[in-house]
Parts: sequence; structure tokens; C-alpha cells
Amino acid sequence: MKKVAIILSGCGVNDGSEIHEAVLCLLHLTKQGAGYQCFAPDKNQTITNHLTGKPEDSQQRNVLTEAARIARGEIKPLSELKVADFDALLLPGGFGVAKNLSDFASQGTQMQLDQEVASVCKAFASARKPAGYCCIAPILIPRIYPSGVKGTIGTDSATAEAFVAMGGEHIGCAVTDTVEDSRYQVISTPAYMLAKNIAEADIGIGKLVKRLLEM
Amino acid sequence: MKKVAIILSGCGVNDGSEIHEAVLCLLHLTKQGAGYQCFAPDKNQTITNHLTGKPEDSQQRNVLTEAARIARGEIKPLSELKVADFDALLLPGGFGVAKNLSDFASQGTQMQLDQEVASVCKAFASARKPAGYCCIAPILIPRIYPSGVKGTIGTDSATAEAFVAMGGEHIGCAVTDTVEDSRYQVISTPAYMLAKNIAEADIGIGKLVKRLLEM
Repeated sequence: MKKVAIILSGCGVNDGSEIHEAVLCLLHLTKQGAGYQCFAPDKNQTITNHLTGKPEDSQQRNVLTEAARIARGEIKPLSELKVADFDALLLPGGFGVAKNLSDFASQGTQMQLDQEVASVCKAFASARKPAGYCCIAPILIPRIYPSGVKGTIGTDSATAEAFVAMGGEHIGCAVTDTVEDSRYQVISTPAYMLAKNIAEADIGIGKLVKRLLEM
Repeated sequence: MKKVAIILSGCGVNDGSEIHEAVLCLLHLTKQGAGYQCFAPDKNQTITNHLTGKPEDSQQRNVLTEAARIARGEIKPLSELKVADFDALLLPGGFGVAKNLSDFASQGTQMQLDQEVASVCKAFASARKPAGYCCIAPILIPRIYPSGVKGTIGTDSATAEAFVAMGGEHIGCAVTDTVEDSRYQVISTPAYMLAKNIAEADIGIGKLVKRLLEM
């Protein structure tokens, strides 16, 4: 059984992992016979009220503790991820990728990755183990792989330009499809960067997971 | 297009809606061509840390605001649900059903339903509009439908006994199947009361949604 490490970034599209995408990743991995283990950074994050869409600056939560909601408690600190134990890596999207796994939300193309995230993602890249990035998560790809790496965030021009400015080659892509750079074993899909509903996200994520397990 | 009202109870298996079940409900409704609107009670709830499994008594959150994470912000207060606007009702599981939609967690067979939940669920029953209950949510059924109503919470004997003690007829059921009481247009499936993984829950919930839209 292939085993996939999943990095979550909290719980909720506006400040953590996009919940539908994360669950669809778990669903397709399980349906396709793979095992998985969820991980998240053990650190604090700021909160966005998902009813109003506004920040709630008075509150902080812990990324790992909130991500545990998606993982039904079966989650470990990202610091415990050993690349040798896994066949592939998978990152769902959600604004937590830009806020908790990196500072892309505030720093744009000057962004830095969270140190643990950088260490793990680069280790998968160095080991030439396949890695899948969904939605906004592909914005991390140019910081992890060599210049010219191919990826997609769908068709959003500002985000695509940032991808290019950081050294990637951005390929426009439909929500139901994926972009793969076979040189580096990295694959991405737009998911809710483009999806109008969960069934559309489901198609692209299903394809990505299938390829991830074949690569 | 059929339109289904979904009642969420927070965000997370231990104190709110079971996230996988809620997302699978949205997925199957969308894939089968139905529309949906999520609702949740606008009231405070206590929190369980999903990493440790322990209560965090110092903190309260709002059921509607947390459920908005699953609904990507597209959610309304349960008080705004008008039964006439919908063809069917659907409740995912999660311990929030027993804690936020009712007090089953603390009161057992003496439980009372949240007043808004009772009002909405009974209105669907009176209108003879189909209603689907997943996982632990069927424990509400004997308080909503006449004595002898059939439902399932899977095979857990203590919960099944409570279902019977409150006046229901409990039917044991596999995770991949459903129990339907066609007299009352109500259907239930065990989901994570029995599921060993998300793919098992997916099968039962997929069947329930299909029947819900046919009923």
C-alpha cells in the first residue's frame, strides 16, 4: 500500500486548509487504495470569521489543533514527518497555505516558507518522490523546485504572475485538469482557485491523486 | 433542480458536524444535480480539542460561525430556514448533533432537541418531505416522528437501545447501507458510527443522498 503524507494548514478556506479539498484528497487516496498520514505545523495562527469573512484579531488558534478537526484527531506535528516513511506528498489548498505554511498572503513574491514546510517539501523534491499541490498551494512550488518548474494555479492572472516572478513556468489549466512537471515529479490542480462547486474540485483532485499514486 | 436544506452543528467530529460526512453530503448532492443551502443554529457551544480529545472549557465558539468553515461562508442561521423553499432535509453526523442540536450527550433518553432544530425537523416531517440523517443524527428521529419510526445508528448497542427507549424501531445496518421508513419519508445511514475509513462512509452517504432525491 502506498503511503502519502498530507500537510494541512488549519481548518477552513479563509485561514486554514480548504475543507472540501482536504476531504476530497483523503477520499480519493482511500478509494484508490493508498494510506495517508496528516501533518500540520504546531504553531499559532490568526483567525478569520468564516460567516462574516472578517479577521478576528483578538483570537489565536493552533494550526495543528485546528487541522486535527479535518483529520478526526489522526494528525502529527509536521516536525515528526520522516520523508523515508512516505511514497508521496500532498497539499490541499486554502488560505492557510498563504498565511500559515508561508507568508505569501502578506509578502507576495517576497514570501518565505515556514521552515518546517520548506524542509519537508524540499526533502520530497530531493528524493524525487512525487508531490501534489492543490488550489493556492502550487504558489509554494517555485520556492521548492529549480527555476522553470511547471505548475498551475488555474487562470488567476495576479497569482500566475507571482508564480512566474518567483521563477516558475505557469501553465493555465481547467479546474478538471492537472499540470505535471515530470522532470521534478510535481503535479498541481486549480481546485477552488476555479471550481464553481465541489463536484468540479472533485474531478481535478481525483485526477491529481490518481497520477500522484502512479508517478 | 431539487433543493436540499442541510443542518450543520459546528465544525469537527468531537464538538460539531463530522467534517467528512458533511463534505460527502455536499459532494453527492452536487454530483447528483441537486442544489443545497447550509444552516446552523446561531448560538454558542463548548469546544473539544481535536488533537487531545479533551474538552477546552475556557473557550466558547459560535455554532453558525464554525459551521461556516464547512460551508465556505455560504450558510444561514437556522431561524431563517423556510421549509416551503426546500424539497428535502439532510443532517450529517458528528458529536455536535448530540451537544448543539440536542442535549443527548448529557441527557441520554431524556434529551430535548434545540427548539429551532425541533421546529424545522418536525415541519419537514409534517410536510411529508424526505429527510436524511447520518451517523449519530438519527438519534433525533424518535423525537421528531411518531412512535415506531424506523431508523439506524448502525450496530452500537447502547445508542440503539436509546433509540428504542425513545420510541423508535431500531434496525441494524451496515455502513454501506441505509434504513428507510417510507411511511414517514425518513432515511438514515450509520456513516462514522461504523465506518473504518472515509471510503466506507462515502458509500452509505452516496446511497442515502440518491434515495433522498428520489423519495
